Amino acid sequence: MLQFKAVTLSALVGVFSTSLLAAPSPITDSQKETAEQLIQTALNSDMGYDIVTSLTTEVGPRLGGSEAEARARNWGAELGKELGFDRVSIEEFTMPFWDRGHLHITLTSPYQQPLYGTALGGAAPSESEVNADVVYFRDIHALTDIKDKELKGKIAFVDGDAMVKSQTGAGYGQANQRRRIGWQHAQRGGASALVVRSVGSDSHRFPHTGMMSKNGDEWATIPVIAVSNPDADHLRRLHQANKPLSMSLHSESKWKGEVSSGNVILDIIGSEKPEEIVLIGGHLDSWDLGTGAVDDGAGVAITTAAAALIAKLPKRPKRTIRVVMFGAEEVGLLGAFAYAKQHEANLANHVVATESDFGAQTVWQLVSNVNSDATQLVDDIAKILSPLGIIRGGSDVAGGGPDIIPLAAKGVPTIRLNQNGRDYFDLHHTPDDTLDKINPEELAQNIAAYAASIYLLADTDVDLKGAK
Amino acid sequence: MLQFKAVTLSALVGVFSTSLLAAPSPITDSQKETAEQLIQTALNSDMGYDIVTSLTTEVGPRLGGSEAEARARNWGAELGKELGFDRVSIEEFTMPFWDRGHLHITLTSPYQQPLYGTALGGAAPSESEVNADVVYFRDIHALTDIKDKELKGKIAFVDGDAMVKSQTGAGYGQANQRRRIGWQHAQRGGASALVVRSVGSDSHRFPHTGMMSKNGDEWATIPVIAVSNPDADHLRRLHQANKPLSMSLHSESKWKGEVSSGNVILDIIGSEKPEEIVLIGGHLDSWDLGTGAVDDGAGVAITTAAAALIAKLPKRPKRTIRVVMFGAEEVGLLGAFAYAKQHEANLANHVVATESDFGAQTVWQLVSNVNSDATQLVDDIAKILSPLGIIRGGSDVAGGGPDIIPLAAKGVPTIRLNQNGRDYFDLHHTPDDTLDKINPEELAQNIAAYAASIYLLADTDVDLKGAK
Repeated sequence: MLQFKAVTLSALVGVFSTSLLAAPSPITDSQKETAEQLIQTALNSDMGYDIVTSLTTEVGPRLGGSEAEARARNWGAELGKELGFDRVSIEEFTMPFWDRGHLHITLTSPYQQPLYGTALGGAAPSESEVNADVVYFRDIHALTDIKDKELKGKIAFVDGDAMVKSQTGAGYGQANQRRRIGWQHAQRGGASALVVRSVGSDSHRFPHTGMMSKNGDEWATIPVIAVSNPDADHLRRLHQANKPLSMSLHSESKWKGEVSSGNVILDIIGSEKPEEIVLIGGHLDSWDLGTGAVDDGAGVAITTAAAALIAKLPKRPKRTIRVVMFGAEEVGLLGAFAYAKQHEANLANHVVATESDFGAQTVWQLVSNVNSDATQLVDDIAKILSPLGIIRGGSDVAGGGPDIIPLAAKGVPTIRLNQNGRDYFDLHHTPDDTLDKINPEELAQNIAAYAASIYLLADTDVDLKGAK
Repeated sequence: MLQFKAVTLSALVGVFSTSLLAAPSPITDSQKETAEQLIQTALNSDMGYDIVTSLTTEVGPRLGGSEAEARARNWGAELGKELGFDRVSIEEFTMPFWDRGHLHITLTSPYQQPLYGTALGGAAPSESEVNADVVYFRDIHALTDIKDKELKGKIAFVDGDAMVKSQTGAGYGQANQRRRIGWQHAQRGGASALVVRSVGSDSHRFPHTGMMSKNGDEWATIPVIAVSNPDADHLRRLHQANKPLSMSLHSESKWKGEVSSGNVILDIIGSEKPEEIVLIGGHLDSWDLGTGAVDDGAGVAITTAAAALIAKLPKRPKRTIRVVMFGAEEVGLLGAFAYAKQHEANLANHVVATESDFGAQTVWQLVSNVNSDATQLVDDIAKILSPLGIIRGGSDVAGGGPDIIPLAAKGVPTIRLNQNGRDYFDLHHTPDDTLDKINPEELAQNIAAYAASIYLLADTDVDLKGAK
């Protein structure tokens, strides 16, 4: 408690000294006026909603490495040209392709009942129909405790709890363990298949897919399936009633060899320091179950629309603004790693980077790890965003979004406009991630926040190079 | 407007005169006290929630005529014995069995995308894979306007709108036309299959199943499939963007001959007029996609628990209270018609009947069509229910619930405890109708309302025979 108080006081003092003793703002009156105009224009524009409507409707689901993702790249490049970006390119890379295939999974004891499940990314197919008794594990910890070969001939079911709902998405990492590493223990135990409670905060009959983690260089050799939270509740109640559980399942999910993917790059070339890049973006690929509206059609729409509004200003900002529509994010940040490698020689010129990949609800906080000389700029950007309901958050937070991880790891400074993620994990990686879940007004608030802050970062004379 | 005013005034006068000029209540102080005790007991009891938990968990989905429905009958009879009913029986009947089988349905133009659909009850199988262009109809009226043979070789898609949400469920009848009679026009037009927007008020990726209507003695000879509201939105947007639509589908749904079903009858035998029956109930069968929690595990639980609480009183009420767990409701009120036929000779002794089949949200209104001499009794019952947030509604409403229709048609008086149905059609006939959707406190309010009112109807000396 004392420690907590100390931290709180120190934070308060920080805020106090900033507000009273601030140096003259590095933002000029003219820049401030332009940023405020961008906010108004964005709030009154349908551009972002039109973009995500077009992507989800005209391209549809677009799994990393699929033909649909290739169509999405063409869509993205065409869009960039239409919206007046100065330079449009597609940077291809190769990747292994995982295909979901068909699944059926049924409870067979204590009675016959279909279960609503889906394969997890990276899972192997069943050679033939798996009919087996189920061993119930209350959570991932119970599974990791098993002895080798203990599950021979069985299906392991790992329960757990529905994810706690939170503004920040805290809780995802913990819940995600059963999805990430469960297979390693089930396989060590000799299980024929692993079934896990979905990692999601909803109580709808949708399974949540998502990628598993490799074990070194190894992927699972067994089928791994997530079932919906209501299905997992059902299995738990049957287990608690001492009913013997068995299941029948057949899954066709498998790796299918090397394919092409790519990132789409849309640039607004800077008028004074064109070599310095302010990088924003979202990921173009989606899981195949929904149409990738909140994950991450929204992020693509938000960042593309924000940049496009800046492109309509009478004058280009000083630095280059680059929108990257990353490929193959869901299946392992493959586009992000490809980008970091392809642009390795030029990363020092990436002065700040950020991604929108947390849905379409409103932004509530601006965080950044920019260097000390640039901190006041970010503080002052937050003040301009304040009418949008956005506050300034602790300034040492790295990150910037999943696809920024490889860049941040190489020292590229980051900012992030944190969104309210309370409902995000209701929809995340389910069939229910569709356009109707996006509120156009909330999307427009995001675009307003991005347009203003990206414009100010691109047009400032403050040296942005080097993270704190 | 004038007419509306006149009705409103007359209704107000009605309430006014009732409250000022009421005759002495037909409810004795002792009966009132017992009813109020039943309300308190019900509000503090888990019995109803335990019943619906047991039914949905230990029996699971239970399609009319299936092996699972037979298990549900045994479950119901066992439950009746455990709860102290005086007489427990199963009354069998035969029925034709419709089986859903497997379905796949995919959009194939403008690109490949899975659709979330399910067969409608009574639909025929596809002989083989149907691959066809889609003709879009904005609503059922557009489809009924077609000429014979106009759709030869095509798949018809009938759009419409998501159901309006309302407390009373108004809007279901209208929206339901596309489900009920759409096939007759698609078939007349020579279509290879019919796809319709689901009849539901949600925006989740769940199709809503439900029975079609026969055309005379004829069922559909083509596959008929409902897709989820978000899928229908998607098809509409593609159509509006002038994209040519085509689909591939294969459905195994079909009629499979005569099988057994049955009604479960649980009686609390009256102490003074055992031959007079107050009939309550719900339906035991469910659609196969969910586990039938709100439709109608809730109704079974509410009415069984209400009667069981009355059975625990020191003394049996004067009339017999009969709980009927109707079989095969979803597939055409088959249990209800069987009951009316099997008890035809004794219907005059059914002095009042009601069913709970509108979910598990709270009761807000009591309506009835009891005879004029009994109207004050119902008015006074409503006063006792008033602390539960229940008001008295217009007294000439027939009905009583779907399974009461055949009884009401033969003159059996009805009451109904109207539930708030605002969220009912979000879940109705979908995979998402599972236990987690029931709020135990709302369920208990229902049981309190039923226990008090059924006790008072069974114990009253007022002559209940004959509807108004």
